[in-house]
Formats: sequence, C-alpha cells, structure tokens
Amino acid sequence: MDNTDKPSTGLVLHHLENSRSQRVLWLLEELEIPYTIKHYKRTKEQLAPRELRDIHPLGKSPVITDGDVTVAESGAIIEYLIEKYGNGRFEPPPTQEAKLQNRYYTHFGEGTLMPYLVNLHIFNIVPNRMPWFMRWFTRLIFGALQKRLIVPNLGAASKLIESDLAKSPTGWISRGPEPSSADFVMLFPLEAFPLALGEKNVGPKTKAWVEMAHKRPAYIRALEKGGNYVYAKL
Amino acid sequence: MDNTDKPSTGLVLHHLENSRSQRVLWLLEELEIPYTIKHYKRTKEQLAPRELRDIHPLGKSPVITDGDVTVAESGAIIEYLIEKYGNGRFEPPPTQEAKLQNRYYTHFGEGTLMPYLVNLHIFNIVPNRMPWFMRWFTRLIFGALQKRLIVPNLGAASKLIESDLAKSPTGWISRGPEPSSADFVMLFPLEAFPLALGEKNVGPKTKAWVEMAHKRPAYIRALEKGGNYVYAKL
Repeated sequence: MDNTDKPSTGLVLHHLENSRSQRVLWLLEELEIPYTIKHYKRTKEQLAPRELRDIHPLGKSPVITDGDVTVAESGAIIEYLIEKYGNGRFEPPPTQEAKLQNRYYTHFGEGTLMPYLVNLHIFNIVPNRMPWFMRWFTRLIFGALQKRLIVPNLGAASKLIESDLAKSPTGWISRGPEPSSADFVMLFPLEAFPLALGEKNVGPKTKAWVEMAHKRPAYIRALEKGGNYVYAKL
Repeated sequence: MDNTDKPSTGLVLHHLENSRSQRVLWLLEELEIPYTIKHYKRTKEQLAPRELRDIHPLGKSPVITDGDVTVAESGAIIEYLIEKYGNGRFEPPPTQEAKLQNRYYTHFGEGTLMPYLVNLHIFNIVPNRMPWFMRWFTRLIFGALQKRLIVPNLGAASKLIESDLAKSPTGWISRGPEPSSADFVMLFPLEAFPLALGEKNVGPKTKAWVEMAHKRPAYIRALEKGGNYVYAKL
C-alpha cells in the first residue's frame, strides 16, 4: 500500500457537531492525553456528512483513529480509551455492585435509552416535513406511536435512573469518586432529557448528575473545543 | 424485608418467547452450568407481559437473576455470564485486533443494528394496524421512512459484517475457535436478517455464521428448551 496519504498516527477524534461524539470529547479531556479533533458539520438534512465514510464504513460519528486502529461505536470507544489511557482512573470501584451498575449503564445508554430518544425525535420531526395538508394526519399517527411505544418506556427508564442515582453517595453512576464508562455513555441521552421529556419531567438526581458533569473542568474544555452543541452552552 | 416469598437463589433466565433472550439461552447452554428458565408469553400486542416488571423495573426480557443479583440488558448479561462462569472460554483471542472486533460487535449489535431492525419492523406493522382507509397513505409515509432512514444504514451494516466475517479464519466474529460475547449479542439480529432484508440480501458469510451457530449442540439444546422461536426451527 502507498503510504503517502496516510493520516497522522496520533489519536484523532472524528467529531460531528451536536452529536454523541461530545461525550468522547469529554472523556479525552478527562484523560489529559494528546489528541486532535477533526470537525464535521451535519448536512442540510441533519445527517452525518459523506466524508465520515472514509473513516469507517458506516459513516457515523463518534469514531476515533489511534495510529493504525479505528474504533467506532460509543461504548466501544469509551471502553477502549479508558482501558488504554486511563491508568486505573475512570474505572468503577472494585465491588460487584459498582461493576454491575457500570456494565449495565454502559450498555443501556446506547442499547435501550438512545433508541427511544432517537425515535421520539424522528416521530416529532416527520410531520413537520410533510406537505401542509398531510401534517395533521401524520401528527396523529406519530403522536399515537410516541404515546404507546415511547413515552411509557422513557418514563420507566427515567424512574430507574433516578432511583439508581439516589443510591450513589457520589452522584456518579457506578458510585465512585469519578465518572466511569457508564457516565460517559449516559452523558448524551441525559443531556437530551430536558428537550425530549420536558424540563419538568427530568428527575432531581438526573439534573444534579448533569450539573456535576457540566462543572468538570474537562467538560468545559471539551465544550470549548467541540463547537456547536445544542445540549449545553459555555 | 420478609424472606418468605424470595425466589430461588439459583440462576434463573426470565425468557420471553421469540425474543433477544434466545441468545442468552444459547450462552447458558454453552456454559454448561445449572440454571432454570422462567417462560413468559408475549401479550396480544406482541409486547412483554407485565409480570416481567416484577423482575426488573423496565419489564423487558432478557433479564437474569443470579442469587441476589439481577442483570438486565443483553450485552451486560452476556459479559457477566462469560466473566463469571466462562473459566476463560468464550473470550476473544488475546490479540488487539480480536479484542477490538469483539468489543465493537458486543456494542454494535444492540447499539446500532437492533434499533434499525426494530424500526424496520415497527414501520412495517403500523400501516397494517390502521383502519383500511388510512392504510395506503400510512404505508406511503412509513415506506419513505424505511427507504431513507433504515435501508441504506442496514445495507452498510450488512456489508461491514460480511467483510469482517470474511477476515475470520474460524467464521466467529472475534476470530477465535469459539463464539465470544460479540457472537452471542449478534445472534438475534443476524437470525432476523432474512426476514428483515429478504433472504437474497443476506451475505454468504453471514448465512454461514448463522448455520454454524445453529449446528452447535448447545444451540440445539437451547432451542429445545426455549419454546416458540420464529427465527429458527428444530
């Protein structure tokens, strides 16, 4: 293979504005390791741009390249970075309960919670993109889907998160002194909760968790470096 | 707390028919450990029944209880079982590449692939449940959503899976002699591929992978024990 156009061998975050990638940026700042950001803007349709397919065949963000290695999928990226660069930090406390909490939420964030939020969003925007004379009817169908398939599940999820956070002496998901992989994965959906559920439906423990994350110096640096981010402001 | 009604302290799989739970059943049979199955039937609306909420607040399957411990979320259950009962089996080979593959697909199966398949299914069935005079129009909307939001993404995912399986000398995802957590997570979506994409759109490597899983004695025992399973027959 020709090496002329090989990308830098350093760590690169391929970062899409207003996306799940912001949580990887937060973790990178927490880790205090050298990395560069490559910024990508959403298309007019709010999708990831085609150039991301040059990095990973699915063409989504986040994705990182670390020398010859490419890692996609938020949960996998976060676990990889903590294992490789964490030096023992950002791990759950060494109790079975903490490990179970951490493992559960590291999967739950993308495996259960994000699909609800994505569908809530899709079902909200589709009617607005229909010709005006179809809008009322489309809104009726998608409203019914939201009410039956999403709202009860999101409500149960929100209650579970509240009750689990209430058991954490530190406020972090796996109950240690610092955020763990579960907290990084959960950042994006929990930041989206006020927009998705309505401010008044977000539980106090969840709000406190988001505030705690937003006060971390590493989070603030990540926000400065990330560009547009609709779920938090500098 | 009153202990009178405490459930058995053994390992119990709370198993919903025709569900993602089948892959946990497969893993339990591979592990050759004692466990019991508690069977749950879907409601008339094809949803999980209310009793599952007594096991875990989200009321979904799979969920396992192992003595005092309850573990939900497929990826978390599979990792927990392999770590606790695997005795070193069902781990990826100890190379960086194998570990990365395993970690990626362990997250990708539920974090990326299943949401596409679930939406494909929802967008298919919703029009059929509408009053007849709304069906044509509803099918038009949902067909457009499938075509724009799901089909291209599923196509890219299917191509990626084919190309990664083609690199595996053994046919398993993390390229070792036995299935690893990624294979267990990927069972359900890949079994659903022929129904979702159409038989002719499933790649040869993916088909071979499913056949290889279906030939395992543990898989066959799991099928005998699981009851109804639309994605494989005895």
